[in-house]
Amino acid sequence: MTVARRTTDGRADDPRELLCQLLRQFYANGWVSGTGGGICGLDGRDLLVAPTGVHKETIQPPDLFVLDPSTGAVLEPASGSTSRPSECVGVFRAVLRRRGAGAVMHSHALDAVLAADLGDDVLTVRGFEMLKGIRGVANSDEHAVPIIANTAHEADLVSGVERVLEDRRFAQTYAVLVRDHGAYVWGADVWETKKHAEVYHWLFGAARARRS
Amino acid sequence: MTVARRTTDGRADDPRELLCQLLRQFYANGWVSGTGGGICGLDGRDLLVAPTGVHKETIQPPDLFVLDPSTGAVLEPASGSTSRPSECVGVFRAVLRRRGAGAVMHSHALDAVLAADLGDDVLTVRGFEMLKGIRGVANSDEHAVPIIANTAHEADLVSGVERVLEDRRFAQTYAVLVRDHGAYVWGADVWETKKHAEVYHWLFGAARARRS
Amino acid sequence: MTVARRTTDGRADDPRELLCQLLRQFYANGWVSGTGGGICGLDGRDLLVAPTGVHKETIQPPDLFVLDPSTGAVLEPASGSTSRPSECVGVFRAVLRRRGAGAVMHSHALDAVLAADLGDDVLTVRGFEMLKGIRGVANSDEHAVPIIANTAHEADLVSGVERVLEDRRFAQTYAVLVRDHGAYVWGADVWETKKHAEVYHWLFGAARARRS
Amino acid sequence: MTVARRTTDGRADDPRELLCQLLRQFYANGWVSGTGGGICGLDGRDLLVAPTGVHKETIQPPDLFVLDPSTGAVLEPASGSTSRPSECVGVFRAVLRRRGAGAVMHSHALDAVLAADLGDDVLTVRGFEMLKGIRGVANSDEHAVPIIANTAHEADLVSGVERVLEDRRFAQTYAVLVRDHGAYVWGADVWETKKHAEVYHWLFGAARARRS
Repeated sequence: MTVARRTTDGRADDPRELLCQLLRQFYANGWVSGTGGGICGLDGRDLLVAPTGVHKETIQPPDLFVLDPSTGAVLEPASGSTSRPSECVGVFRAVLRRRGAGAVMHSHALDAVLAADLGDDVLTVRGFEMLKGIRGVANSDEHAVPIIANTAHEADLVSGVERVLEDRRFAQTYAVLVRDHGAYVWGADVWETKKHAEVYHWLFGAARARRS
Repeated sequence: MTVARRTTDGRADDPRELLCQLLRQFYANGWVSGTGGGICGLDGRDLLVAPTGVHKETIQPPDLFVLDPSTGAVLEPASGSTSRPSECVGVFRAVLRRRGAGAVMHSHALDAVLAADLGDDVLTVRGFEMLKGIRGVANSDEHAVPIIANTAHEADLVSGVERVLEDRRFAQTYAVLVRDHGAYVWGADVWETKKHAEVYHWLFGAARARRS
Repeated sequence: MTVARRTTDGRADDPRELLCQLLRQFYANGWVSGTGGGICGLDGRDLLVAPTGVHKETIQPPDLFVLDPSTGAVLEPASGSTSRPSECVGVFRAVLRRRGAGAVMHSHALDAVLAADLGDDVLTVRGFEMLKGIRGVANSDEHAVPIIANTAHEADLVSGVERVLEDRRFAQTYAVLVRDHGAYVWGADVWETKKHAEVYHWLFGAARARRS
Repeated sequence: MTVARRTTDGRADDPRELLCQLLRQFYANGWVSGTGGGICGLDGRDLLVAPTGVHKETIQPPDLFVLDPSTGAVLEPASGSTSRPSECVGVFRAVLRRRGAGAVMHSHALDAVLAADLGDDVLTVRGFEMLKGIRGVANSDEHAVPIIANTAHEADLVSGVERVLEDRRFAQTYAVLVRDHGAYVWGADVWETKKHAEVYHWLFGAARARRS
């Protein structure tokens, strides 16, 4: 699956422009402040990845790196920049490979951090219509979101992410919470990733509001 | 009553453009995130309805369906799209028919969900000037908003909605809360629906803030 | 004092355009949702007043009424409209007359309503640098904001407002809280009114956050 | 270090335009409402400083003052204005001198005020990935942010700020909290200052959310 050139609402979009537009939206939501967070999306056989250490709302289409999703090698560097691809690449590639995702976003939302405080290694969400916004989930389901421990370096999260992606309890899940840190959310393409990101962040806030 | 072509503030507006503009505003308010929620409005004898499963803030005038409000039949499909009309059509039509509404909006606001948690089958709101923003309501009134149970499918909400619309306790009400889900809000035309939506969401937040 | 044609930051502004721009800003702040709230400002000897019952963020310069501030008579109706001037005119004129204000805004902010819940007939604010944003107030002052009871009709607030404007406890105050309703805030001109509105709303939120 | 003409994401920016753009962003965040707060940045040997008493979101490039950072003398007044440079200049210069900063921002955010309530003379932040957004800090560090007492006049904060800048406990810190008032945040250039401001405000909100 790839970044849809023709979106679900019938309009064509340039995948690079779309990723930058979503980063601006995520910034406005408070999900990628302080240069944190990130996004990647498949464009055919290429993986478009935002650079690291950059104010995410300022990223322009030429600032994106092109990577080989299977090896992680940089096929095309971002233009006129000394930056590197996002440090999330390891986690992004693990999700693409094991879940057949077409895009993955990484959030530093406070709501994600506080939602992870509600559970030990799993956040169980139930009793919300919004659950139907997750592919294959009914509003009567108990939806389990894995919570993994944080690590000193983003790259070291890969083994924890891979472990929960293999865990059958989380077969239906399109998100991983990272304690003290935030969340990774994905979907079949960029638009479903945006949808899932909005749904999961709504659920993170709702779960917390109900418990307090 | 129809989508006013000449609005209360003296300007003409295209009904399709107006509905799309309101969806962008609702999205910014957090009421229709994750492709949730929706809107419909009468344009003469036609009912304009937003499509389902689409990011609501991206909807453009040609993306709207034209339905026959009395039969629910699609008179004109949305252009260049494989999408279907909102799953809220059944509820929308029930409200149009029983209340003579000219427009109905559906919200997935967290404040609506948490307000529904405050009551069993009714949320009673009192002691707010903002009540005067609802047609026919005084700021000294006790205003009763019905709360109905959620269902597995949006279409199955119709009977619950029809039941409360027939209930004399709710004769003055322009909103229905759906537990765990959100709210439906309506008015004589699109502008009154926007006004009522803003007033009810303010009241939902205020009711919760006062009780905690 | 009048709507400054040359603002404190050295730029000229059309008073009508400025009032409309502030209404859009107030709307974005959640202070005038659901057609609530309003604003007025002196333009020389004329009093510019926003219409009632209109979505405040949609108001354009020709939509403003021109009133005689001393009699309240309409000198120029809003163009192409059947609307009436804001129902706040009585309170606006009382503030202009007794305090020599050049502009007054009316807010339906939830923070104002909840701040009024913190006191009986006065909200005492202390211990915030932001107090210095009010003309003549030091950050070590105890600042008293009057709270008056709400009435069935906006026009009936005038006597309550006049009473507290005469009260020596409130000689330093540029705001009146109306229980269950919101606040009136004023200043020497439109820009000071905007400044005072931002300062008082910040203090309303801060007072509540500290007490809980 | 200076305002980067070529930013970290590879684009050139006019330093004056950049400072004004950040003030608009800070205003949207609620950090500089009511004309409060401010910013300064080095442009080569010049120090660009926003004026005092002005609505910060309205500031345009010619409104900035040019100061000599070592003496504080005004080299170029703001054009067409009777305003004075920000009252924060004393604190700004202390931070530039003692920390080699290239820019400093001053915030009146409610989250900063409430975070200062959490400590006596220090706010200790731990257990957040976001700590990595501060230069030289690891996510496993205990990060100490100094809290100083407020003073009647902004200029009188200088000695308190200088004292904590000399304190070895705060060698790693890029922010000072001022009780009842807000925060000063800085960085090597304007972009790092923006980054640090976003990171510290996120941490202020998170520290409070976790304790309650």
